[in-house]
Amino acid sequence: MGEVTVVVGISGVGKSTVMEEALLLSEADPMVVNYGTRMVELSQERDLVDHRDELQSLGADTYIDVQMEAARSIVEDAETEDSVLVDTHAAIKNPEGYLPGLPKWTLENLEPDTIVIVDATAKEIHNRIESDERDREVASVEEIEEYRDVMREMASACAVMTGAHLNIIENHDGCAEQAAEELVGVIDR
Amino acid sequence: MGEVTVVVGISGVGKSTVMEEALLLSEADPMVVNYGTRMVELSQERDLVDHRDELQSLGADTYIDVQMEAARSIVEDAETEDSVLVDTHAAIKNPEGYLPGLPKWTLENLEPDTIVIVDATAKEIHNRIESDERDREVASVEEIEEYRDVMREMASACAVMTGAHLNIIENHDGCAEQAAEELVGVIDR
Amino acid sequence: MGEVTVVVGISGVGKSTVMEEALLLSEADPMVVNYGTRMVELSQERDLVDHRDELQSLGADTYIDVQMEAARSIVEDAETEDSVLVDTHAAIKNPEGYLPGLPKWTLENLEPDTIVIVDATAKEIHNRIESDERDREVASVEEIEEYRDVMREMASACAVMTGAHLNIIENHDGCAEQAAEELVGVIDR
Repeated sequence: MGEVTVVVGISGVGKSTVMEEALLLSEADPMVVNYGTRMVELSQERDLVDHRDELQSLGADTYIDVQMEAARSIVEDAETEDSVLVDTHAAIKNPEGYLPGLPKWTLENLEPDTIVIVDATAKEIHNRIESDERDREVASVEEIEEYRDVMREMASACAVMTGAHLNIIENHDGCAEQAAEELVGVIDR
Repeated sequence: MGEVTVVVGISGVGKSTVMEEALLLSEADPMVVNYGTRMVELSQERDLVDHRDELQSLGADTYIDVQMEAARSIVEDAETEDSVLVDTHAAIKNPEGYLPGLPKWTLENLEPDTIVIVDATAKEIHNRIESDERDREVASVEEIEEYRDVMREMASACAVMTGAHLNIIENHDGCAEQAAEELVGVIDR
Repeated sequence: MGEVTVVVGISGVGKSTVMEEALLLSEADPMVVNYGTRMVELSQERDLVDHRDELQSLGADTYIDVQMEAARSIVEDAETEDSVLVDTHAAIKNPEGYLPGLPKWTLENLEPDTIVIVDATAKEIHNRIESDERDREVASVEEIEEYRDVMREMASACAVMTGAHLNIIENHDGCAEQAAEELVGVIDR
């Protein structure tokens, strides 16, 4: 397997836009895979869930099982690829707290070379969610601040456990293009 | 073993009060165990210490040995339990620095499902310690701030290493009841 | 092998000065080793690099190989020592992001007893770099703030993975002597 780049970021930070833009600008042609989508597909194959929203309601053991299987299936698909881009989360906030999106068993399978955090200030993220038509529940700036802290702490632990680079790309208001170019720098390295 | 919930928090944050209140309100009847007390008991059985205060003066190898043994004995006791609540620390401040309360060998034995941090602002914790009759040494607000940072960073690393949820419960002034109810939500899930 | 103390800190924080002063004051006579220098020596022996600056341009696999070999060679040299002081970094900022200086394989070899962070405020570090005759590129205070956060997060993860103490020594302006004395306290414990 070639270079594995994992891209994480809080919902509302604009991760998808930065990734799409980066893929347009990139000269490499990485395989792109969404970790959550892969988990949903595997769960549907096993008749465990119908929709993505149900993923968090799987029992812990089943969830871990699907999470590990998803990592393995990504590694399998990527075997002949030069470059793989995994779209996922370092921390997933749900009613039970912050769930690590890249726990030990996922890291041991994916063996990422770089973990990219797409980041912005808590205030910027708050405003983006508020103006989002999808009408998501809007967390307070303080809550987003805590979420960002936990996300980066978990991503730092992931880096120590794998030796991966931790790359923080700032996606400030009006700077999505620049953020995309920075991500291209990582993908095309 | 059933669900393992580890509860951590800085001295002075009011962790014991929140736990006691939560246990009164909870419909579950979890086995409750204090990790430090278990370590003291095991050390006393082996004639290593007389009192809890001496625990930190055990040599590093002996300390780790007792720490590992305590985790194993908790797991043994909890084998037939549906729910276990472990009262401990993510970081223990002593003259040599911050000692991780949940190092790798403890995590590998306990395999927590959820790590709960009972938290408050550094200023609130400072004031609570200051007004405490037990007359503990009062750290400055800056020192408590650093302690909180290290505690959460270590707890985040613990979550990545085990896949456990990290749940931060705010125990702000006058909100102990609400904090207890949040903890009940974790215990009774 | 005796007590292993790893000392880390951002470039510009004054780590070398604090270490030199501490070694003059210390009653112990620890073996002192610079992890990066050891990596350079091993790379030169293998004709991989001429100068230290080229270390970061080794391919990832070769870099890890050298990093692991360096840890092993330090452990070998230190076998009969009572005390070893390893000068290194918890996070190394390079164009690809923050590289963990103490990844899993280094930690598993070195098994540090204490990880010391020599720290100062981001503003102090900024000013020190700016007034430095070596004319290094000066990062903004915000960039240094982020670097400090990532460094401490990675060091906290290292502590959890090894059970090592994390000791943060403040090297504020005009307090180098005091910082050195605190480090002596760790070395001579």
